[in-house]
Amino acid sequence: MIKEYLKTINTFEKELSHLGAISALLQWDQQTIMPKAASAERAEQSAYISTKIHQTFLNKKFITAVNKLSNQVNFKKLSKNNQTRIKHLKKDQDKNKKIPLKHVEEYSKLTSLSHHKWVDARNKENTKLFLPTLTKVVNLKLKEIKYLDPKGIANHPYDILLDDFEEGMTVEKIDPIFEELKFGIIQILNKIKQSKPYKTRKDILANKKYKFPKEIQLKVTNEIASLMNPDTNRFTIAESVHPFTTRISFNDTRLTTAVRENQPMFSFTSLSHEAGHAQYEMGMGKNLKNTSLQDCPTVGLHESQSRIWENQVTRSFDFWQFYYPKYQKHFPTLKSLKLKDFYESINIVKPSLVRIECDELTYCLHVIIRYELEKDLIAQKIKAKDLEKKWNQKYQEYLGVKPNKPSRGVLQDVHWSEGYFGYFPTYALGTLYSAMLWKQINIDNKQLKKQIKKGNIKYIKDWLDKKIHVHGKTKTTEQIIKLATKQTITAKPFLNYLKDKYYPLYNIKE
Amino acid sequence: MIKEYLKTINTFEKELSHLGAISALLQWDQQTIMPKAASAERAEQSAYISTKIHQTFLNKKFITAVNKLSNQVNFKKLSKNNQTRIKHLKKDQDKNKKIPLKHVEEYSKLTSLSHHKWVDARNKENTKLFLPTLTKVVNLKLKEIKYLDPKGIANHPYDILLDDFEEGMTVEKIDPIFEELKFGIIQILNKIKQSKPYKTRKDILANKKYKFPKEIQLKVTNEIASLMNPDTNRFTIAESVHPFTTRISFNDTRLTTAVRENQPMFSFTSLSHEAGHAQYEMGMGKNLKNTSLQDCPTVGLHESQSRIWENQVTRSFDFWQFYYPKYQKHFPTLKSLKLKDFYESINIVKPSLVRIECDELTYCLHVIIRYELEKDLIAQKIKAKDLEKKWNQKYQEYLGVKPNKPSRGVLQDVHWSEGYFGYFPTYALGTLYSAMLWKQINIDNKQLKKQIKKGNIKYIKDWLDKKIHVHGKTKTTEQIIKLATKQTITAKPFLNYLKDKYYPLYNIKE
Repeated sequence: MIKEYLKTINTFEKELSHLGAISALLQWDQQTIMPKAASAERAEQSAYISTKIHQTFLNKKFITAVNKLSNQVNFKKLSKNNQTRIKHLKKDQDKNKKIPLKHVEEYSKLTSLSHHKWVDARNKENTKLFLPTLTKVVNLKLKEIKYLDPKGIANHPYDILLDDFEEGMTVEKIDPIFEELKFGIIQILNKIKQSKPYKTRKDILANKKYKFPKEIQLKVTNEIASLMNPDTNRFTIAESVHPFTTRISFNDTRLTTAVRENQPMFSFTSLSHEAGHAQYEMGMGKNLKNTSLQDCPTVGLHESQSRIWENQVTRSFDFWQFYYPKYQKHFPTLKSLKLKDFYESINIVKPSLVRIECDELTYCLHVIIRYELEKDLIAQKIKAKDLEKKWNQKYQEYLGVKPNKPSRGVLQDVHWSEGYFGYFPTYALGTLYSAMLWKQINIDNKQLKKQIKKGNIKYIKDWLDKKIHVHGKTKTTEQIIKLATKQTITAKPFLNYLKDKYYPLYNIKE
Repeated sequence: MIKEYLKTINTFEKELSHLGAISALLQWDQQTIMPKAASAERAEQSAYISTKIHQTFLNKKFITAVNKLSNQVNFKKLSKNNQTRIKHLKKDQDKNKKIPLKHVEEYSKLTSLSHHKWVDARNKENTKLFLPTLTKVVNLKLKEIKYLDPKGIANHPYDILLDDFEEGMTVEKIDPIFEELKFGIIQILNKIKQSKPYKTRKDILANKKYKFPKEIQLKVTNEIASLMNPDTNRFTIAESVHPFTTRISFNDTRLTTAVRENQPMFSFTSLSHEAGHAQYEMGMGKNLKNTSLQDCPTVGLHESQSRIWENQVTRSFDFWQFYYPKYQKHFPTLKSLKLKDFYESINIVKPSLVRIECDELTYCLHVIIRYELEKDLIAQKIKAKDLEKKWNQKYQEYLGVKPNKPSRGVLQDVHWSEGYFGYFPTYALGTLYSAMLWKQINIDNKQLKKQIKKGNIKYIKDWLDKKIHVHGKTKTTEQIIKLATKQTITAKPFLNYLKDKYYPLYNIKE
């Protein structure tokens, strides 16, 4: 009987992987090449597939098979991977069953409306226009928490939401880590602010004498993607407004890029970021294909793979020692710009207002501000109407800058309008994982920096494939990080990395 | 009750239109941008959706609703459009029911295999390698005819296959038309062959001193597409090996183009061909959206819309009087080439071996050869093993050329390998419709040629929208052609068009 139940589960998971592929393709196509006038039709097609996914996931035969294999006797007889699979499926199906369909529909309608309200308020630079809908979104999220944890067993209601994105993480675990992180970054930032270079250093690349034509930027992004992912038959790149990566199927990963004519580093680092995500998708074990284990355990771990490439590799001096001559050939106006000046320019520290445009050093402060606010929102310590004031206070306090308009302040990110509470912390957690992994990979290979200088970056991909990607969802993020680094999550490696990089950049002696 | 049945039908047709959109997107994406390594996965996804479409189309509730509305009492109460809809649905469902699922599966497997065998035989230039499979395909087609017409009521078994592509057409109707067409073209061709210019005229554009960079060709194709379809928000263009057009949904039509560096007319005329198809898809009545009437009645009528643009418009002297100066700006090496020489070059007549590379004059001969052969194949007058010999004889007889290898002879087209018997004649029928429509539009607007010379081609689109596209499948091809031209299908307008165009081009006096 176990065999038959497993067969049933395989069949449903395969169907889900086809539907997932279609859903991802509909989205990717919409963001890249779909004609503008087709938005409403595409929304209907996507909704149709979402419903099919929901129905398939909650098909009675599927649930029965999962339940049967979840009972103690059968469960023990399963392979380790199948145990993990059943555990996840059981958990997700139970979660799904707890939330009434009516709530799901109400939520889906509201967030679609809410998104439009957010766009409108953002365009009009008027936060108030968004508040009534945001309040409703928060209330529905609170209702969802109630459905999932009716007895209030969780230490913090926000933990219930975290579980969707970063399973295993809780407010209790995050709070001290983020405190240390915040304190550490602010300390470094203050030192930098007092340094001489800070007062004089400029974003040289913004000088209009340097030319970065769009076609060449696209060529460069392709070059970097192929350097990072030599198996070019398994992915493709297109343009979209916001860069992102999605897996269609096992051998089909899609990246997007966006070009800003006078900010060449935007397409460059965002591409290396996305190509890091793509490595993860393409590195999962073949044995996991078309099963629910062909996935990452948490969003934060996925993010660590993009950030390690975006920051530790492609913003490093080592990398540019290898790549800058090639880069200069692509953009001949850079001929007169020295590597040192280029490197300083692409690593300039400047507290700013917008998360997706900020520097590497201050990035996590932007994330922590959102985490602190949404945590209090879900704990009902603050209300939607308090957000803007608190937001501005925190930006002033942590970063020393003051938002001048909502689109560069509290309305800058799409997440809350779509009800994505619990997502933001994964950006910072991913950053911390990336530093832990970077520390370890340099211990495992003492020659790595030298290799990077020569353009030999294959070791990094192979190491990450072996230590992270291949596991898919067969282990938890905590297990994977522990196996790779022998540590549990901590902010220290990241803070040390920042000091090692930015103190020399700003002539600071510890 | 009628209302409820109609509601059921609307629901199923909407679901079918979503599934159709997804199926079309999967195909389009595969041909344009999908990573190479994903072929096998994509085949599975497409097969999955095909099965869903089949299941939905034959859902019992759907069939019951159609049957209920097909009975005399209810049928009379329906609107004209709904009557047409029900008639089509009833016919298609009945047809579907007549063919056992086992046969469908066998056929699907065989044609997939057969495609590979064809590719292999073509690569190896060995027709024999393909014959055993082709024989099996023909036998399955004969079996299908038996299922659909068990008592052999049809005048000719080939009529049963024609019905899938050109409803209303029969061997009895086609034979005399194609005879006249064949005779007429050969007559014109012989006159041209005896003319002076025929002996000296060369394909000037192939001269390597003229440069047609790929990016510029793509720019030009975009320009032409926008000229023909000013509503640029409703379609998009990408590159593929073979140009094609597909509708994803009402406001989402996809074209593809292919560039050959030293044959600029390939991308040009194939794009205007595809943009003609696109006009059809985008011109259907809004009231038909998401119903089975949002479709063309026959493949031949669709083809007429592409050929009128490809030939009557964008291969005409009038059009190039307007466009050639722009074209020269795009390709500055053409500066020294006179319009007259350019025009003669793009309309050169030269009997050749390959249908998709041939000239406008001889195109239909290529089609008629295929028609004559496949008709006899289905009538079991000849066998698969006879095809190559017969093919070569006919090419010699009609065109005066001799295939030198199978890939430029009997193995050149994909259709037979996929079991598409009955499709080929639509290419010539479409060509005949296009000439009939072209004659009529010039009667309706005596100023049209003058307008085209000035680049004002909007009248053509508007006329075709009104006379053809808007109807969707609410009328038959015969009805639509009759309404537009007051004629039934005939080869005369096309033959006259050919004489009017090619006699002056080759200094022939009638």
